[in-house]
Amino acid sequence: MQETYSEFHSIFSVDCVIFGFDKGELKILLIERGEEPFINHLALPGNIVGEDEDLDAAAGRVLNELTGLNNIYMEQLHTFGEVGRHPQGRIITVAYFSLIKVKRHELYPKIPFAKKAEWRAFHELPKLAFDHSVILEKAYRRLQRKLRYQPIGFELLPDKFTLTQLQQLYEVILEKEIDKRNFRKKILSYGLLTESGEKQKNVSHRAARLYRFNKRRYNSLKKMGFNFEI
Amino acid sequence: MQETYSEFHSIFSVDCVIFGFDKGELKILLIERGEEPFINHLALPGNIVGEDEDLDAAAGRVLNELTGLNNIYMEQLHTFGEVGRHPQGRIITVAYFSLIKVKRHELYPKIPFAKKAEWRAFHELPKLAFDHSVILEKAYRRLQRKLRYQPIGFELLPDKFTLTQLQQLYEVILEKEIDKRNFRKKILSYGLLTESGEKQKNVSHRAARLYRFNKRRYNSLKKMGFNFEI
Repeated sequence: MQETYSEFHSIFSVDCVIFGFDKGELKILLIERGEEPFINHLALPGNIVGEDEDLDAAAGRVLNELTGLNNIYMEQLHTFGEVGRHPQGRIITVAYFSLIKVKRHELYPKIPFAKKAEWRAFHELPKLAFDHSVILEKAYRRLQRKLRYQPIGFELLPDKFTLTQLQQLYEVILEKEIDKRNFRKKILSYGLLTESGEKQKNVSHRAARLYRFNKRRYNSLKKMGFNFEI
Repeated sequence: MQETYSEFHSIFSVDCVIFGFDKGELKILLIERGEEPFINHLALPGNIVGEDEDLDAAAGRVLNELTGLNNIYMEQLHTFGEVGRHPQGRIITVAYFSLIKVKRHELYPKIPFAKKAEWRAFHELPKLAFDHSVILEKAYRRLQRKLRYQPIGFELLPDKFTLTQLQQLYEVILEKEIDKRNFRKKILSYGLLTESGEKQKNVSHRAARLYRFNKRRYNSLKKMGFNFEI
């Protein structure tokens, strides 16, 4: 096909970076590997792409086989193709990225390639298999950047949430304290939150109002050139 | 390596999307292919990645061989891995993206894989080889998005430019007219432009002031949380 370099055949894989948020902690969905190399190590859910499989389809299939999750919207994060990133040869991996609501989904691996799938606290992780810690770090940086200028935090929260939960999500992911009054003023000024009419239940402190994110309003504001920014 | 799917070996390539801006037009750097398939067709500068070559290095090497450009900073755009995107088999391509100043660079392909390399007007292109029109469209959307919230237009302009040139760049890339007074007020308010002390030469109308982009000031503002937005 070309003169200077001989054709070289590589294996392709996909790796899925799935973030969640639960009990005030940022979570990441990992598998415990059931096969060598890195057997028993934690890893991103990932595997080889099939010959007749589109990349995006492969990401969905692999995530489903290793965790049981289905119909998760994922976007491409980055392709990692360093020589030597995989001990068994040249394997180039396309990393995908998603934010989901933890509680909606049950986890159960369908193939022994994963011994189990579980949510782990992002800020308390050991080193992952292969270069997965590097991939995860890149995904986290994207999450931090996007959180500042897109209302993506709502993907991680339950459908109904308090303003305190929302602020806590920003504080945990951006790793900084946020002034409560400014935050509430700004977030409410956008008109993107709808009061659900309900309050928290079974809490020891005064029950706070529960809000919903108004996606329809966000989409129509966006069309008019509205910029979300925290 | 896994049970459900047999290992499958693919070729992978890199493709480079290089934008420029010249004489009021958005330009894209293309090659005329010297080999089958799609011989004599216009294509993005792209080729196969070497076995012992990191992805980013491959993008730089391929761009250099096909166009003569050297030391161009490129970021990853997206990886295109649809089954059937290449008539000769499964070839997955990692697309890279860059903005450069047209006039600084001379073009000369070093291998016959490219018969020539040239800047073409982006808005007057025929269909490109392979799925390169799809790749280019995705790059253009990223360019439009980024232009709104990052001062990247300066990468495309000469070192010294008039406010009219800057506005024209925004109008051409965003495909809309921009109010002159608002635009100037906003862009000057950021304090990112420095007067060069010079004016245009050899123009039939009144010579306009020439400005420079103050990158150091942008970087220090950014650290303090400044948001650029047009």
